[in-house]
Amino acid sequence: MKLTSGKTAPEVCAARESYVENVSVELLESFLRQLSHDVRNDLNAMELLISYVECERSGGDVGSALMQLHDAVRYGAQRMLRVSRSVQVPDLDYIPYPADILYEDLRDRVALERPQLAARIVWGRCELKTIAPVDATLALEALTELLENAAAFSSCESPVQIGVEACEAGVRWRILQHALDCPSNLEQWGLLPLVSTRRSHYGLGLFRVRRIIRAHQATLGFKYDAGGKKLATEVVFSSAP
Amino acid sequence: MKLTSGKTAPEVCAARESYVENVSVELLESFLRQLSHDVRNDLNAMELLISYVECERSGGDVGSALMQLHDAVRYGAQRMLRVSRSVQVPDLDYIPYPADILYEDLRDRVALERPQLAARIVWGRCELKTIAPVDATLALEALTELLENAAAFSSCESPVQIGVEACEAGVRWRILQHALDCPSNLEQWGLLPLVSTRRSHYGLGLFRVRRIIRAHQATLGFKYDAGGKKLATEVVFSSAP
Repeated sequence: MKLTSGKTAPEVCAARESYVENVSVELLESFLRQLSHDVRNDLNAMELLISYVECERSGGDVGSALMQLHDAVRYGAQRMLRVSRSVQVPDLDYIPYPADILYEDLRDRVALERPQLAARIVWGRCELKTIAPVDATLALEALTELLENAAAFSSCESPVQIGVEACEAGVRWRILQHALDCPSNLEQWGLLPLVSTRRSHYGLGLFRVRRIIRAHQATLGFKYDAGGKKLATEVVFSSAP
Repeated sequence: MKLTSGKTAPEVCAARESYVENVSVELLESFLRQLSHDVRNDLNAMELLISYVECERSGGDVGSALMQLHDAVRYGAQRMLRVSRSVQVPDLDYIPYPADILYEDLRDRVALERPQLAARIVWGRCELKTIAPVDATLALEALTELLENAAAFSSCESPVQIGVEACEAGVRWRILQHALDCPSNLEQWGLLPLVSTRRSHYGLGLFRVRRIIRAHQATLGFKYDAGGKKLATEVVFSSAP
C-alpha cells in the first residue's frame, strides 16, 4: 500500500490506549439483567400481538398486527446483532483514504442514515488531501458514533462542529461540542464496556469506537475546557499505521 | 435461628472458594456472539411462522403455527431469564433444614421436574437429622444442577450416586459419578463464567451453583480418582453459617 508519509509517529505509539481485558462480574450482571429485561419486553409485546392474531384470525386489523410482528422480529434481531458486533474485534480491510473524501462520505452517510443527527452538525469545508489508510466501513462507523455521542451529550440542542486537519502523525479529526459537564476521568471514557447500562443501551457504543480505533492503531482523546464548557473529541488516524 | 451446633467450622472458612470478579473481554465476546446467534435463530424461526400465518390466514394449520409462536416466545423468554438469573447473587432466605428432609425434597423435585435425570440417580437411604440452615429453593436448585452436571459428564449412561453424611462442619453431600476424564484444574471448575460457550449453553450452570454455595458460606469440592475413574462432588453446608 502506498502511503503519503513514511514517518513513524512516536506520539501515536505513546498515546495508544491501554486496553481493558476484563469486565467485572457486577457489570456483567447488570448488563445481562438489562438485556434480558429488554428482550423479554420485546417478546411480551410479540405475545400480545400473537394473541390478537389468534383471537381475530381473518377479521380485525390482523394484517397490521402481522406487520408489527415482522417489525418486532427484525428489531429484536438487530438489537442482538448490535450487541454481539460491539464486542467483536473487527478485521480491517485498509484502503488509502484521502481526508477530504472521507469527510464527504461521512457527511453523506450521516445525512442519509441519521437525518436528525445531520441537522445538529456544522460541517466545514475540507480540502485536506492527506491520505490515512483506514477500513472505510469501520472508520465511518466510528466517526458517526462519535458524532452521535457528541450530539447526545451536548446541551440544549447545541450544534456539533466537525473538522479535519493534518498533523505530524497523519490526519486529526476534531469534534467540538458544548458540554455543561463531562465524565471525571475522560481518558477512561468508554474503555470499559457495559458501564452505564440502561434500557436498550449497554455502554457498548464508545467501547466499540475504541476497539475500531485501536484496531487502526489510531488514537482517541478528549479535551475538556471547563471554562468555555467545550468538549473536543479528537481522533488521529496515522498515515503510516 | 436455632442451630443444632454452635461450633465454628475452620475448614469451611479455609476452603471457602476464591471468587472470580472479572471476566475477560474475549470470553464476553464469544458468549455474546453465541447468545446473539441463538436468540436470532429463535427469531428466524418465529419469522417463518409469522409469514406462514400471513399467507394462510384462516386456512392451513394456522392454529398450530400460532401455538408454536406462543411456545417460541415462552422459550425465548425463559432463555433470557435463565441467563440473567445465572449471574445474579441471590438473597438467601434461610430456614433450618434437616438433611433427611432436604434429601427427600431433592428426590421429589428431580422426579417431578427432571424424570430423565431421575432415572440415572441411585438414591440411598437417608436418616440424617442434622440441621443445616439453607435457602430451600436455592439449595435444591444447586444440588439439582450438580446432579445434572454429574449425569451429563459421566460416561455410558452410568448411574450417579448421591449420599449425605454428618461432618464436623455440618452436612456433607456427596455425588459420585463415573468419569473417564475430568477438567485438569478441578478447583477452578465453574469458577469463571462464560467458559465453554456452545449452542444454548453459556457456561453459567456451575458458575451459578458456586454463587449459591458461596452465598451460603458453604463449600464445593471435587475429588477425582483417576484409577477408578470416579469423580466425587462434595458440598458441605455448615450447621452454623
